[in-house]
Amino acid sequence: MATLEQLFQPVQPRIDDTGNKVTVVGTGQVGMAAVFSMLTQGVTNNIALVDVMEDKLKGEMMDLQHGSAFMKNARIQASTDYAISAGSKICVVTAGVRQREGESRLDLVQRNTDVLKIIIPQLVKYSPDAVFIIASNPVDILTYVTWKISGLPKHRVIGSGTNLDSARFRYLLSEKLSVAATSCHGYIIGEHGDSSVPVWSGVNVAGVRLSDLNVKIGTDGDPENWQELHEMVVKSAYEVIKLKGYTSWAIGLSLSQLARAILTNANSVHAVSTYLKGEHGIEEDVFLSLPCVLGSNGVYDVIRQPLTEKELGQLRKSALLMAQVQAGIQF
Amino acid sequence: MATLEQLFQPVQPRIDDTGNKVTVVGTGQVGMAAVFSMLTQGVTNNIALVDVMEDKLKGEMMDLQHGSAFMKNARIQASTDYAISAGSKICVVTAGVRQREGESRLDLVQRNTDVLKIIIPQLVKYSPDAVFIIASNPVDILTYVTWKISGLPKHRVIGSGTNLDSARFRYLLSEKLSVAATSCHGYIIGEHGDSSVPVWSGVNVAGVRLSDLNVKIGTDGDPENWQELHEMVVKSAYEVIKLKGYTSWAIGLSLSQLARAILTNANSVHAVSTYLKGEHGIEEDVFLSLPCVLGSNGVYDVIRQPLTEKELGQLRKSALLMAQVQAGIQF
Amino acid sequence: MATLEQLFQPVQPRIDDTGNKVTVVGTGQVGMAAVFSMLTQGVTNNIALVDVMEDKLKGEMMDLQHGSAFMKNARIQASTDYAISAGSKICVVTAGVRQREGESRLDLVQRNTDVLKIIIPQLVKYSPDAVFIIASNPVDILTYVTWKISGLPKHRVIGSGTNLDSARFRYLLSEKLSVAATSCHGYIIGEHGDSSVPVWSGVNVAGVRLSDLNVKIGTDGDPENWQELHEMVVKSAYEVIKLKGYTSWAIGLSLSQLARAILTNANSVHAVSTYLKGEHGIEEDVFLSLPCVLGSNGVYDVIRQPLTEKELGQLRKSALLMAQVQAGIQF
Amino acid sequence: MATLEQLFQPVQPRIDDTGNKVTVVGTGQVGMAAVFSMLTQGVTNNIALVDVMEDKLKGEMMDLQHGSAFMKNARIQASTDYAISAGSKICVVTAGVRQREGESRLDLVQRNTDVLKIIIPQLVKYSPDAVFIIASNPVDILTYVTWKISGLPKHRVIGSGTNLDSARFRYLLSEKLSVAATSCHGYIIGEHGDSSVPVWSGVNVAGVRLSDLNVKIGTDGDPENWQELHEMVVKSAYEVIKLKGYTSWAIGLSLSQLARAILTNANSVHAVSTYLKGEHGIEEDVFLSLPCVLGSNGVYDVIRQPLTEKELGQLRKSALLMAQVQAGIQF
Repeated sequence: MATLEQLFQPVQPRIDDTGNKVTVVGTGQVGMAAVFSMLTQGVTNNIALVDVMEDKLKGEMMDLQHGSAFMKNARIQASTDYAISAGSKICVVTAGVRQREGESRLDLVQRNTDVLKIIIPQLVKYSPDAVFIIASNPVDILTYVTWKISGLPKHRVIGSGTNLDSARFRYLLSEKLSVAATSCHGYIIGEHGDSSVPVWSGVNVAGVRLSDLNVKIGTDGDPENWQELHEMVVKSAYEVIKLKGYTSWAIGLSLSQLARAILTNANSVHAVSTYLKGEHGIEEDVFLSLPCVLGSNGVYDVIRQPLTEKELGQLRKSALLMAQVQAGIQF
Repeated sequence: MATLEQLFQPVQPRIDDTGNKVTVVGTGQVGMAAVFSMLTQGVTNNIALVDVMEDKLKGEMMDLQHGSAFMKNARIQASTDYAISAGSKICVVTAGVRQREGESRLDLVQRNTDVLKIIIPQLVKYSPDAVFIIASNPVDILTYVTWKISGLPKHRVIGSGTNLDSARFRYLLSEKLSVAATSCHGYIIGEHGDSSVPVWSGVNVAGVRLSDLNVKIGTDGDPENWQELHEMVVKSAYEVIKLKGYTSWAIGLSLSQLARAILTNANSVHAVSTYLKGEHGIEEDVFLSLPCVLGSNGVYDVIRQPLTEKELGQLRKSALLMAQVQAGIQF
Repeated sequence: MATLEQLFQPVQPRIDDTGNKVTVVGTGQVGMAAVFSMLTQGVTNNIALVDVMEDKLKGEMMDLQHGSAFMKNARIQASTDYAISAGSKICVVTAGVRQREGESRLDLVQRNTDVLKIIIPQLVKYSPDAVFIIASNPVDILTYVTWKISGLPKHRVIGSGTNLDSARFRYLLSEKLSVAATSCHGYIIGEHGDSSVPVWSGVNVAGVRLSDLNVKIGTDGDPENWQELHEMVVKSAYEVIKLKGYTSWAIGLSLSQLARAILTNANSVHAVSTYLKGEHGIEEDVFLSLPCVLGSNGVYDVIRQPLTEKELGQLRKSALLMAQVQAGIQF
Repeated sequence: MATLEQLFQPVQPRIDDTGNKVTVVGTGQVGMAAVFSMLTQGVTNNIALVDVMEDKLKGEMMDLQHGSAFMKNARIQASTDYAISAGSKICVVTAGVRQREGESRLDLVQRNTDVLKIIIPQLVKYSPDAVFIIASNPVDILTYVTWKISGLPKHRVIGSGTNLDSARFRYLLSEKLSVAATSCHGYIIGEHGDSSVPVWSGVNVAGVRLSDLNVKIGTDGDPENWQELHEMVVKSAYEVIKLKGYTSWAIGLSLSQLARAILTNANSVHAVSTYLKGEHGIEEDVFLSLPCVLGSNGVYDVIRQPLTEKELGQLRKSALLMAQVQAGIQF
């Protein structure tokens, strides 16, 4: 009798579901850092990888599978066929093309829109109830594009947005204050990247607002130049890319945190790119980051931060810019 | 405008499900240690507690809720009404009466059967697809009783069985060998408690069978008296109860491990009480512990260990005894 | 040749240290919940238990040891002899007598002082570099007593204080706001228990101060009656004790969090009872809770919250009361 | 008054130690995957990175630091100066040059020896009590080289060895058996890579040896061809490198597991490259992998597996080969 027949008395056929499946599209540095964060942090033990590069895809799958015995029984599948993603609770999209030298922002957006036109309908087909997290750049516009293509309710499409910018901000605060990043609170909102908006009025340690101690904090007139921290956040991505060629660990951890909030239905608050029309006087059909309450069905609430005129102005300017670029996209 | 209206821009109503809900019936020391293990080890963040003692139930619920900020967003509900358990993936039963002085085993079983006749149909009603884990004693017979009352397929009813006895065995091996308990492998099978059976042929470190180094291991004739370790396992529960009044931490951790295997669909192997008719020549309708492959639908396979005649004899004797007691139960 | 000699080629003798040893004095419900939290949350894997009740002590030790295979190689030792505590990084004191009916506060304090006079010098002898966390009640005064008896620098003696009150407050906020407790920020300071002080000015979600949305928050004149949350916090301990007989899980988790902050040298902020003379106009030699930056050497900084006159008044009143009671203690 | 002075009442200066510092030399794919595994799995929260490539080094450091708020207060330092590594409990060496086309094994070894001659004395200087883990290839010879250069006792120098090969083997067993990799037990020993030796006699599930069910297992004559699994293990590294360009995740997890065993003084068993003279009839001064008991001082014991003549032959052949290559190294 064969070894397996001798070893096992079968009772019932195995089923394959774990109830916490996450699909990640794109096996580049961002996608893989996200997957590895989710597996090692115990956010999920069931990952489906999708990419068009078969070799890379298979290599990453095998490398993770070889680590199964070191993790809590991870299940790693991969395929160029989206059928592998079926039944996911979350779909994370990290795929996309990079900006070519001299390429306009609109041209880049159009090329990535064309990519998403292939990816999104397939994901929706196989996981119609999933929450979609977009990490491809420019993330705010591509979150809008995903929402348009997918036909999903707006609360189930979010962009990774300024969750990472806020984490970088909190790290820099922690360095300046010599206090743990987890005890330094502060949000960066708006557009992910250059035109992001730090909400200085909310920056606090133990509920003590730094702006109550230093009324000029975050302004040009601040003798302590805290504003520099936001400038460093803006430069961070560029600097890391210049130094190591790409960013991976921090964005991977950011995506893992968002996935945990959703899979555990946490009602926790994170700055993510969400549909903003009607908030803060924004009248355009755009996605920008605000603190949101996240749970298993995506965004439950948007937190209404009291913003200064300057902050509102920056936010609305970003919204206008988004809307202009979006107007040129061909779906 | 009220504070909440100012703070939140609602997007959609919250939903309450997490996909990993566990109901624990019985808020005694075992039930609470199990719940606390599951929450602190990140096995689930969604617990429903059921008990008949309203005060105790509410007190335990509140005490856990007060710790929410220290855990990963735990959701704790409790009620004397089983509706609170609706939609659970796992139902753990720790409720039951204790043996009275001079009470016969059958009388105890009958009294606990009467308790289960109230509990089980309610749990099945609200979570028809759950896996049931029975921890009440005598666990093997009460697992059988649960199976009979529930009408569930046999692979979805398991008893915590000798998973704990095996852990105690591995701890004692680790002490004797000065090697981590997680690197000492060995199973105790059969009836949980006095008549459990240590499978010495499988005891190994790094795949090196101790019985290959000491052929008399586990027998009366062993000059090194390894058998003593099994005797200590058998005495363990009695000793802990004598010393502290009850057992809690180790059985709580054991239940947490089983819950993790099921919720993550792990296909991992654990000694649990399962339906044995047809295995090892057992012809009775009984539940005893053997190593089983566990996943989200309960028991997938029973592992067929090659047993010695002595081990088989002990197992069959337990089976007969179980069947005799079971024959006297009034359902 | 004996089994072990065949199995092992010895290379060097084992050493026993892990660098993260924690001693817990007192194996009652609080002490054991703290130990179990630390082990299951991976805060330490090396625990020494000390108590005067030999049976209880041994029972708890065995019960934890039996769970070793389910945890990350926990090392549990226990003894009535303090030598077992040698080399601890943290000493947690949960021992103490309870208030007798009709007993005055000072009498209780004196009886517990007499207990600490036995415990503390032994702990200091064997772990002179440890950080001491006091959880015995009345915690603020007993932290002072420990400091006096121990001769340790004040930054190495802390009381669990209002870290738990703050967690209860955050849980109640989370219920009222339908937002995760981990995203609801707020501190309760001062004396642990009845006369604790909620710092409403710092209560916030995503940096949005509730007091900016509702200027009367926390006052008698608040039509939304948020003050009720603090009243519920104050009543919490009494209610849980009335319902289940004692509190355990939340205080255990609170102590585990403080231990993690210290062992990982986190620089994270927690409300703990610390030496307050010179802060907020307090002139007495007292310990009360304020948000503190904690690390491997205890308290690094106290956070200076801007307090209202009312809050300052309550704090100073507590300080005076502490000092009066302390004046009557016989060392 | 400046913001910080208003916010903090200093109590004592911060200290920088956490007691669990790990230095990783080499910020390539292997080094970074190891670091990220250790941080996300909570093995340490204190990492020092050393590399000669300043840009890459700084980029990786910043990327990890930006994720601090998502982890448990990680402390990341990096420098080209080894002073940054001072006081480490573990030094992991992943640096080294790759094989050039047509380069002989000895030439490669010599070039990497020259690299280690720079690295190792610096590490020893700043962390004289650390355990050294070598991951650079060819790992067995470079572990020997490190031992020679370092002057450290042999139990404090280990090579990552076949811990990874064993994990790959267990993954492939888990696929064939449909059982969790964590429940499939088996060791690959000897030289990491092509000439590794699977110890079929120890392969088991729940203590049931597959070789008892299939006596020809692992041999050419096995109709079920289990031997193929070992062949796949040997090919794994080549295949992953061909597909994705390098291996990272699994080796990173392997190193993280070894680091955890050491930092928690676990006494757990892992196949690592260790000094073998005197074991299994080996008479050369070589390092090859055998199952070892690991703790905070490195290797405590080597497990003596009963090996077949064939297995012994393969092991001794590897030892001879190692010794020959080593004879040609110029220190």
